[in-house]
Amino acid sequence: MQVTVIGAGNMGRGIGHRLVAGGHEVTIVDRDPQEAGRLAKELRAAAHGGATVEAAGPNSELRGEVVVLAVYYPGALELVRELGDRLAGKVVVDISNPLNQTFDALATPPGTSAAEEVAASVPTGTRVVKAFNTTFSGTLVEGQVAGQPLDVLIAGDDKEAKEMVAQLVRDGDLRAIGVGPLERARELEGLGFLGITLQQPLRLNFQSTWKLAS
Amino acid sequence: MQVTVIGAGNMGRGIGHRLVAGGHEVTIVDRDPQEAGRLAKELRAAAHGGATVEAAGPNSELRGEVVVLAVYYPGALELVRELGDRLAGKVVVDISNPLNQTFDALATPPGTSAAEEVAASVPTGTRVVKAFNTTFSGTLVEGQVAGQPLDVLIAGDDKEAKEMVAQLVRDGDLRAIGVGPLERARELEGLGFLGITLQQPLRLNFQSTWKLAS
Repeated sequence: MQVTVIGAGNMGRGIGHRLVAGGHEVTIVDRDPQEAGRLAKELRAAAHGGATVEAAGPNSELRGEVVVLAVYYPGALELVRELGDRLAGKVVVDISNPLNQTFDALATPPGTSAAEEVAASVPTGTRVVKAFNTTFSGTLVEGQVAGQPLDVLIAGDDKEAKEMVAQLVRDGDLRAIGVGPLERARELEGLGFLGITLQQPLRLNFQSTWKLAS
Repeated sequence: MQVTVIGAGNMGRGIGHRLVAGGHEVTIVDRDPQEAGRLAKELRAAAHGGATVEAAGPNSELRGEVVVLAVYYPGALELVRELGDRLAGKVVVDISNPLNQTFDALATPPGTSAAEEVAASVPTGTRVVKAFNTTFSGTLVEGQVAGQPLDVLIAGDDKEAKEMVAQLVRDGDLRAIGVGPLERARELEGLGFLGITLQQPLRLNFQSTWKLAS
């Protein structure tokens, strides 16, 4: 699959590693072309099974069917508005955890979610999927925690779009778990928030992940 | 510790097994004295390390410092109002997942939680702790899933009360994770809800549990 990852930061790096592990054609976009180039080079060195990696500037065409918004909230919202019609028809993956500035509460009003806010801002026909907000960057680079594949929890209103994201997840040797419609992003963002708040007290150093064990 | 469990149903059974595994003095209370007696007998047979088990009727004095409300929402709220001053000074453990009648959404309004509703209904000086809402009955009886101890996520505003519940959890060979103030019950109830909705599609048959793996 052709996938564009916008944001060459920590999460773009983590997701990029899973995408190239799965043999996909990845384009890294960043406002800073040097950052995009640096990450593209790192991912190219890690590429498997026919994976390709390119870096592109912020104004280039968005390649592929899937666009991952690997930026912080509320940057994801601003980004979507900026990109406007360039997102038309894409599957847009929102990975954000909308924390407030003191990191002790969600910044989104109760009864909604960052993913739903993103969905309200994309062009008609663009499908938004929530995923990767309960997995941290370093664990994505590794693909596992304590010897077990990460669970990637996926919410969305379009079955085909969710399945495309689930396929990317599985190709990267992670476990995809569909959790229902996009409004389930409310619970996913709550879970992402909980996970973040526990890092310091439990001294986990972002080397943890939520798993549905069975 | 002396602990009263109100409700001899599935969750009372699961939590009861962990309490007697930990050597505690347990009283099972149920509106139906036969149900209370039946569970007390089962738990007595499983008791370890000095654990004792009694059954008591719904109008008896509530024994001990900790009272577990092992009933469904909104029954927990009604129960707390009924018990009134009999709860004064206790540590009250709310375990409920406030699902709506079709099990596809939370019944509590956004921006609150069943635990906070319970806390608003108890006598002054009664401390409410949220726990055990992301662990299912059968897994509590076993104490583990896939060979790993269950994570019990605990929220509350009173440090001492939370620590008492954490001690009960650890004594039952489970892992206690404090997640912050009682309002974090919002995220815990979201997580409990997510876990419930996933049982049927993933065919987990309530033999799963949320773990913060690291």
